Amino acid sequence: MKVTIKDIAKEANVSITTVSLVLNRKKCRVSQETKDKIFSLAKKYNYVVNLNARNLVKQKTSTIGLLIPDIENVFFSSLVKRIEYVCRQNNYSLVIVNSDEKQENDENLINLLVSRGVDGLLLVVSNESLSDDSSMTSLIKNLPVPYVLIDRYFRDINSNKVYFDNNRGAHEIVNLLVENGHKKIGCIASPTYSVNGSHRVKGYVDAMREHSLEIKEEYIFQGNFQFESGYEAGKHFKDTDVTAIFSCNGMMTLGLCKYFNDNNIAIPDDISVVTYDNILNHYMIGTSITAIEQDIPTLAENACNVLFKQIDDKSIENKTVILTPELIINNSVKKIN
Amino acid sequence: MKVTIKDIAKEANVSITTVSLVLNRKKCRVSQETKDKIFSLAKKYNYVVNLNARNLVKQKTSTIGLLIPDIENVFFSSLVKRIEYVCRQNNYSLVIVNSDEKQENDENLINLLVSRGVDGLLLVVSNESLSDDSSMTSLIKNLPVPYVLIDRYFRDINSNKVYFDNNRGAHEIVNLLVENGHKKIGCIASPTYSVNGSHRVKGYVDAMREHSLEIKEEYIFQGNFQFESGYEAGKHFKDTDVTAIFSCNGMMTLGLCKYFNDNNIAIPDDISVVTYDNILNHYMIGTSITAIEQDIPTLAENACNVLFKQIDDKSIENKTVILTPELIINNSVKKIN
Repeated sequence: MKVTIKDIAKEANVSITTVSLVLNRKKCRVSQETKDKIFSLAKKYNYVVNLNARNLVKQKTSTIGLLIPDIENVFFSSLVKRIEYVCRQNNYSLVIVNSDEKQENDENLINLLVSRGVDGLLLVVSNESLSDDSSMTSLIKNLPVPYVLIDRYFRDINSNKVYFDNNRGAHEIVNLLVENGHKKIGCIASPTYSVNGSHRVKGYVDAMREHSLEIKEEYIFQGNFQFESGYEAGKHFKDTDVTAIFSCNGMMTLGLCKYFNDNNIAIPDDISVVTYDNILNHYMIGTSITAIEQDIPTLAENACNVLFKQIDDKSIENKTVILTPELIINNSVKKIN
Repeated sequence: MKVTIKDIAKEANVSITTVSLVLNRKKCRVSQETKDKIFSLAKKYNYVVNLNARNLVKQKTSTIGLLIPDIENVFFSSLVKRIEYVCRQNNYSLVIVNSDEKQENDENLINLLVSRGVDGLLLVVSNESLSDDSSMTSLIKNLPVPYVLIDRYFRDINSNKVYFDNNRGAHEIVNLLVENGHKKIGCIASPTYSVNGSHRVKGYVDAMREHSLEIKEEYIFQGNFQFESGYEAGKHFKDTDVTAIFSCNGMMTLGLCKYFNDNNIAIPDDISVVTYDNILNHYMIGTSITAIEQDIPTLAENACNVLFKQIDDKSIENKTVILTPELIINNSVKKIN
């Protein structure tokens, strides 16, 4: 026979309300002993709070939904881990869905999360959605729960947004190359649909122009944020005159380093390399790449805090938080004359 | 005003049933044109299928829940990606939760998934749950939906299980070291609560005994599956006489390689290294480690197929699938005399 909340209340000798408060982890004035007793009874009888039924009655689910585009990308898996930590600290459970960078999945998964009941959404939309934003912006604008766009955003939606200043980061790291005497600098560019990526490429272009350095056509290699395009970029730049390369993300840098290693090209002796994202140095043995770091805990905390505030008070205005990335100096840049 | 399924049916000039079938992605005999029209109307009005209400009426949710212990571990993030692929191919959405290796989270998150409505569960339980399995086994045994234990399992639950033959893999790779002349072989051991880990350590011990090789006390370094313990193992083994090390997982191997690199110890010239898990060679530049590979797509497909079958027919018997891992030869073992 299925045990009900009433049975547990009776056996624990407390009210149904107390059992409900304790099992739903709400604040209530009962001793730790009583709490433990209720939890152990729930455990004993495998009592599961029926959220589905409850959600239909009251709104609060204590659950946050997180949409990410590529769980295998180390930046996102670290972000997920950190967001979950912040959610748990604030008594929210986190449910994660992965779009595999597909717009169709973005739409289905957002609908799935909303229809199952979440108090709010943290969204890192797919690149496909960014490149064709008409239907997604309409879906997102009409979401019935508070949400925050993290890391990637649509230019024309007035929403909560938390992201890093990509132009500034790219500008700073290309300046560093110039200060070290480099004049012929290549760029593994982000795909054009990426707002962040465009800002990184713009940061490179701005820095080059400021120092009156020529950007030959072959200096910009069109990447797609993935390992393979970094590897291809290595092949491409081998036959150019560049002395240094700025890569727009970590996965492409990994591909680039792999190509250089496979072909006995030494960093920084043969070529200098700097990168956006400082996520790979933990994994890379031997070479540490000078990088622009986007601090993931800071991103996670800001995004969660903006969301939690709006969940608590839906009337507050949308907020945009622009975070400053940090330059991490390693041994991948050679000083030249 | 909120648009209902009735409004969409009217505007598309079809029955409510047709709209429902199409939006729920069920098979039905309507033209692609009509389907497109229904989808575009749903999109236009931001119509979301109310799964919460629906789930209370009928059982099917077309959603699978996946519990993993550590999303930052590359083995698991790859597994998630692959499981999601298989689910999507089979018209299931995947909802992911991450326990951070904590038993308390395991319990809460499994309850969360079940109470929100899933057709089945894929579970990689936390190491904490494995080490103290009393309350978890009770929770799991009483789950109201079909489930499969993946990769990690409890010895005493008669359930669906899909995992690799860990003893065999470890045995094989330690044999390889012996064939290459190594007699003094160290082992970075898994934590004792890990069933898989224990089998890996047993595989090492069995192989050493078979060849009548001495296992000095200092040959077994107690690791915890994390990067840092691999790094510590490097420090430890530097002061021993081992000529080769077998590491029980990839993250520890990464830590080990990092330590050796930081201290100018060359693999395989100064020391040979082999490892369980072939997940890191993609990320590592320069050194490729001979490894036992657990093919992630095979694991994902087997686990999903066992689950899907049981969802379709709850009466079929529990199934245990033991997969054979593969030896991947790289350049990290030196032949000695």
